[in-house]
Amino acid sequence: MLTLDSLYQAAFALNGVARQTDLIRAPRMFPDNDVYLKTENLQLTGSFKLRGAYNKIFRLSAEEKARGVVACSAGNHSQGVALAAQRAGIDALICIPDGAPISKVEATRGYGAAVELVPGVYDDAYERALQIAQETGRTMIHPFDDDDVIAGQGTIALEILNTLPEMDTCVVPVGGGGLISGMAFAIKSLKPGCRVIGVQAAGAASMRHAFDVHRRVALDRVSTIADGIAVKMPGEKTFEYCSKYVDEIVTVTEDEIASAILSLMEQQKLVAEGAGAVSVAAAMAGKTDLAGRKTVCLVSGGNIDVTILSRVITRGLMMQGRQVELEIEVFDRPKQLAVVSALVASLGANVVSVEHDRKTDSTDLQHCMLRLGLETRNREHISSIVDAIRGELGYRCTIL
Amino acid sequence: MLTLDSLYQAAFALNGVARQTDLIRAPRMFPDNDVYLKTENLQLTGSFKLRGAYNKIFRLSAEEKARGVVACSAGNHSQGVALAAQRAGIDALICIPDGAPISKVEATRGYGAAVELVPGVYDDAYERALQIAQETGRTMIHPFDDDDVIAGQGTIALEILNTLPEMDTCVVPVGGGGLISGMAFAIKSLKPGCRVIGVQAAGAASMRHAFDVHRRVALDRVSTIADGIAVKMPGEKTFEYCSKYVDEIVTVTEDEIASAILSLMEQQKLVAEGAGAVSVAAAMAGKTDLAGRKTVCLVSGGNIDVTILSRVITRGLMMQGRQVELEIEVFDRPKQLAVVSALVASLGANVVSVEHDRKTDSTDLQHCMLRLGLETRNREHISSIVDAIRGELGYRCTIL
Repeated sequence: MLTLDSLYQAAFALNGVARQTDLIRAPRMFPDNDVYLKTENLQLTGSFKLRGAYNKIFRLSAEEKARGVVACSAGNHSQGVALAAQRAGIDALICIPDGAPISKVEATRGYGAAVELVPGVYDDAYERALQIAQETGRTMIHPFDDDDVIAGQGTIALEILNTLPEMDTCVVPVGGGGLISGMAFAIKSLKPGCRVIGVQAAGAASMRHAFDVHRRVALDRVSTIADGIAVKMPGEKTFEYCSKYVDEIVTVTEDEIASAILSLMEQQKLVAEGAGAVSVAAAMAGKTDLAGRKTVCLVSGGNIDVTILSRVITRGLMMQGRQVELEIEVFDRPKQLAVVSALVASLGANVVSVEHDRKTDSTDLQHCMLRLGLETRNREHISSIVDAIRGELGYRCTIL
Repeated sequence: MLTLDSLYQAAFALNGVARQTDLIRAPRMFPDNDVYLKTENLQLTGSFKLRGAYNKIFRLSAEEKARGVVACSAGNHSQGVALAAQRAGIDALICIPDGAPISKVEATRGYGAAVELVPGVYDDAYERALQIAQETGRTMIHPFDDDDVIAGQGTIALEILNTLPEMDTCVVPVGGGGLISGMAFAIKSLKPGCRVIGVQAAGAASMRHAFDVHRRVALDRVSTIADGIAVKMPGEKTFEYCSKYVDEIVTVTEDEIASAILSLMEQQKLVAEGAGAVSVAAAMAGKTDLAGRKTVCLVSGGNIDVTILSRVITRGLMMQGRQVELEIEVFDRPKQLAVVSALVASLGANVVSVEHDRKTDSTDLQHCMLRLGLETRNREHISSIVDAIRGELGYRCTIL
């Protein structure tokens, strides 16, 4: 059972182990409202998971500690358990599906844990970890459905309320539900009037679905860039806690997540992973009411593959209308490029790439294709440029 | 003249205006040493520049304040002055060269400053700003060669010494020299035994050159990804302060900067611009002795264009041997792709892209070209893969 007592015990245990991460106001992202970011992406191991894992390990008996722990994850939980075990001076074995990114495997090993690469997907690795627990007596550290783990995550809410007791809305990512269970319990215990909003990716909305049908159902498949919260079914305990303490679960789209990741990078200089950015995505997309409130968005983690980050940047820029490619059918005469460029420049856009093609089949002999990559301000800006090219120059112009 | 008094006055003035940014230990980047990051990239406006600009404006007379200020910059200084003026409730006009990225112009306007886009480069905008100052009586806010500006930047060192009085080495980016002048003065006044190391990009090493020849010389050209510190000549005051208080100026290469930006993103979840990352680059590249010391690297800013960031990620991954493209000449028979892939997988690399080309002129009829994009651990890992393809399969293999 969760108690405030157990949360304060966890906070005490985490002293000197987890960082008390900064709470940063974000006036550039939210100029009209009071929105703060709790930066658990700046936590050791790059996510909040260390807190729950360490609290769980800390509370094991001496005998259990001597037998070590086992866990299963392709992501943040593996690194959290590995570092927690290292700090507690006990042995950890982590089962990771063999297709996982090398960087995550290396990071887990870097914290001193043994790694077993299991052929298959997460469920295979999970089965293998259970089997190891049974055979060796190691304690299995569940990623979310465990009171000690939940209490550890709940310490984040204690820190926020300590820094910003005026908080009246807290927006939290939801995967299995461990994080929000602990936080919502802490908040509703100390400040019942404060709203707690959970956020899921629309492509993996298992808790939201469970709320809708009032029971836990396993989704057939989950698919989202927010892989850290792509969980098919809420936990038993976490569903119960969420039903009791969480006010609402909202969902965000993939494009909203990409846009949030981009804004966090550009405007707050913070790297967030998809799961870590969903709270900010919800606030940006108006899924939670910000007006007149003091809202805290939990940025739960930052472990995103840098190559994915490159793609997110491109996608986010497109989404926000800040990058566009135009295909323009121009007369095949000298200086047409200069004419188009001058018009575009006069409207305040920057030309970042030019492609000029005479061979395209779709054009007649008098025309050729000009493909312009532009840096623009927003979608309205793009519309005004397209209108001018069509209206003032009379060219066909398509947004690619 | 700089005095400790003026620094403490600045710190008091900046209370509630600038954030006291977090000092974060970086054990993942520097597992064997005690290295901390002072995160001025998380400062309002995304760089430390707000501090000096605000202190300068704060100290203007009521009459000067009424006439407003003017400044010139394509980057961080413009945003710093704009927000500082907004906070002080005075009028600001910023001259920006007309080729500057739209995002920087928008950000400056976003802080309520008027922007004049000046045709040409930085020097043209600077001349225009001077002219405006003369014609209108606005006070020109120099980006670095001004005691009030320098005192503002020096407050960063006060904060660090307050949090970590044990610091014995401080590594600081150097452009015009305003930042390091203020910090070095503070450090040498309070803790003379602490080393202060300046870092410049090798392609813009004007202060380093001035140290070498013992006088200020304008470099013909400067070229670096660290555009925030691409300054052709140190200031008069800053050169004097640096000569007196800075122990050493070291330089870093473009690749070292790219690698530092990548590591900060991946391991610390922090977005740093080139100028902001040179301190970390110096520490990573062994240009300052870390063993047995408590080193603070100042991450001075995070305003990097996200499209440049994408390129830096790619470059940094190549540099660190974590991404590679191989061209392999294979027999044109079925299953050769499977054979090569199996070998590569058995060596622990992930295949991320495959290109198979029969049409390439350089191959004879029995062979065809296979181009593999691989995710790898490091350079030794790449060598072992290439050796295996050559040795075990007998294929020609080239790193692209």
